[in-house]
Amino acid sequence: MTVLDRFYKKDRSALSRIISFIENREDGYLELLSRIYNISSNSYKIGITGPPGSGKSTLVDKIAIRYLEKGFSVGIIAVDPTSPFTGGALLGDRIRMQDLASRGEVFIRSMATRGSGGGLSEATREVAIALESYGFDIILIETVGVGQVELDVAGLCDSTVVALVPESGDSVQTLKAGLMEIANIFVVNKADREGSGRLVSELRLMLESRGQKQKEGWILPVIKTEAINGVGIDTLTDKIIDHRKHVENLYTQSGYREKRVKSELITILDRKIRARVLKELLEDNSVDSYVKQIVNGESDPYSITEKLMRKITI
Amino acid sequence: MTVLDRFYKKDRSALSRIISFIENREDGYLELLSRIYNISSNSYKIGITGPPGSGKSTLVDKIAIRYLEKGFSVGIIAVDPTSPFTGGALLGDRIRMQDLASRGEVFIRSMATRGSGGGLSEATREVAIALESYGFDIILIETVGVGQVELDVAGLCDSTVVALVPESGDSVQTLKAGLMEIANIFVVNKADREGSGRLVSELRLMLESRGQKQKEGWILPVIKTEAINGVGIDTLTDKIIDHRKHVENLYTQSGYREKRVKSELITILDRKIRARVLKELLEDNSVDSYVKQIVNGESDPYSITEKLMRKITI
Repeated sequence: MTVLDRFYKKDRSALSRIISFIENREDGYLELLSRIYNISSNSYKIGITGPPGSGKSTLVDKIAIRYLEKGFSVGIIAVDPTSPFTGGALLGDRIRMQDLASRGEVFIRSMATRGSGGGLSEATREVAIALESYGFDIILIETVGVGQVELDVAGLCDSTVVALVPESGDSVQTLKAGLMEIANIFVVNKADREGSGRLVSELRLMLESRGQKQKEGWILPVIKTEAINGVGIDTLTDKIIDHRKHVENLYTQSGYREKRVKSELITILDRKIRARVLKELLEDNSVDSYVKQIVNGESDPYSITEKLMRKITI
Repeated sequence: MTVLDRFYKKDRSALSRIISFIENREDGYLELLSRIYNISSNSYKIGITGPPGSGKSTLVDKIAIRYLEKGFSVGIIAVDPTSPFTGGALLGDRIRMQDLASRGEVFIRSMATRGSGGGLSEATREVAIALESYGFDIILIETVGVGQVELDVAGLCDSTVVALVPESGDSVQTLKAGLMEIANIFVVNKADREGSGRLVSELRLMLESRGQKQKEGWILPVIKTEAINGVGIDTLTDKIIDHRKHVENLYTQSGYREKRVKSELITILDRKIRARVLKELLEDNSVDSYVKQIVNGESDPYSITEKLMRKITI
C-alpha cells in the first residue's frame, strides 16, 4: 500500500509523512498537492490571530476541546513566530497544547519558518490542503501578529477570530485598521483584567464609527473571554457556528466560490513564478556583470530590470 | 526648465512633484527612477521601527532636530500604519511632526498605503531614491511593527533603530527573534516608566544568550531614552554615528557593495515580474475557464499553475 493509500485510509503516520513531504518541498510535491487537493472538502477553516501575549494558544486549545466534545475531528496548524532569517523557533506556550494530543481525533502541526512571510503562508496553505483532504471537520490555524502572514492566512480561512487583551490598548489604536479587515469575530481575552470593559467599548465604538459593523451582511461581534478559566468559550464557539452558517450562505451565491478559487489560483501562481525567477536569476552569471555596471554608475537597477523583463514572455 | 532640472536645482515643489509622480506610478515613472538613481549618493538612511505606542514619531522628531542642529539636511519618510485593504490612513501622532517642517532643510513625506505589504515597501524604496538623488544628508524612515514591510525597509537602510517600551514586555518575548535580526541599535523609550530597567536587562541577556551580541563585528547597544523630554537622544545619535562608521568600513570591503546592489536588483525585479504576471493573468479570459475547471473538481490550482508556468519563458 502506498503512503497515499494509507493517507486516504486515515493513517496518522501517512498524514505526517505527507505533510513533511510538502513542507520539505521534496521532488514531486506539487503533483502530490494536485492529487490531494479536494474542492468539495467539508473541512471548516478557522483562523485565530492577534498580538503576542493575547492568549491565542489557550483559545485554540479551548475551542478545539469544544469541537472534540461535539464529536468533530480537529486539525491544528500553529504558525510559530520565528525569525525570517535564523529560522529559530520560539516555542512559547506551545507545550500546553500537548494536552490536546492525547484526546480524540486531533492532530497538531507546528510550522517551522520557511524564510520570508510569503514562504510561510504558502506552506501553511499547503498543509491546510493536506488536512482538508485527510478529512478533518475543523481546521484551526493560529498565527501571531497582524503582518502579511496573518492577512494571507485570513484569506485562506472561512472564519477569522482576532484576539486582543486589555494590555494591547495602545496597539489597538494603531493596529485596528488591519485587524478590522480580517476579523469576523473579535475576542477580548483575559477579560478579568483591568481595562477589559473599556477595550470592549472602544472596539464597539470603532466598529460603529467606521461603518464596518457589518461585512457582507455580518455583524462583527465583540466577545469577552477568560480562555484560561474556560469563561466565554461557549459564546465564542456559538458565534463561530453562526458565522459558518453565514459563510455557507455566501457560497450559495452565484460566483462566490469562483471568486475565492480565482484569488487562490493567483496567489499560488504568483509564488511559483517568483520562486522560478529568483532561482534562474541566481544561477545566471550575467547578473554579476549587471551588478558591476550598477556599482560603477554605468547603469541602475531600474534599467537592468527593464532589460531582464524583456527576456520574459508570458 | 523641466521638473527634473528644477529638482536638481533643489526646488522643493519639484521634489514633491517627482515623489507624487513615482507614488502614483504615472507613465514613465520607471524611466524617471532610472535617471535619478544615484549610486554615489552620500545620503545616509536610518530606519526607526518598533511596536505601536513605542514613541517612534517622537524619536524621529528628536533625531531629526539633532541632525538639523549639526547642519545636515534631513528627509523623513513616515510609513503610515494603514489597512492593506481600505487604504485609510490613521494619522496618530503624525501631527507633532509638523513642528519640524518649519525648521531648516527638512522634508517630510507620509506614505499612503499601496495595497499589499510588498507594494508599500516598494514605494518607500522609490521615494528614498528620490530623496537620495535630491541630496538629503540624512534620510529617516519610520515604520510601525515587525512585519514584512519593516524587514524590507531594514534591508534598505544603513542603520536600523528598534524602539521598545516597558509595556511591550510581553511582546518582546515573542517578537524578539525578528527584531534582533534587523536591529543595529535597541532603544528602550519612555524609560521613566516602571519596568524599563528590567526590559534593558532582558534585552542585554537575550543578546548575550543568543550569541548575537555582535553582528558583522558590531556590538548591539541598548540605549534608554525619554524621547518626549529629550533624554538619551545625544547618546542615541552618537551611537548612530558610530554605526555609520562601522557600515562605511564594511563598504570598503571587497564585494560588500556588490552584495547589497545584487539584493536590491533582485527585489526590484521580483516586484516588477509579479506585477506583470498579475496584470496579464487578470486580463486573460482563459483564467475564468480554469477557475471553472477547479470549481467543478475537474482540475486543481496546482495543475493549472503548472500549465500556466509552461507558457512562461525566462
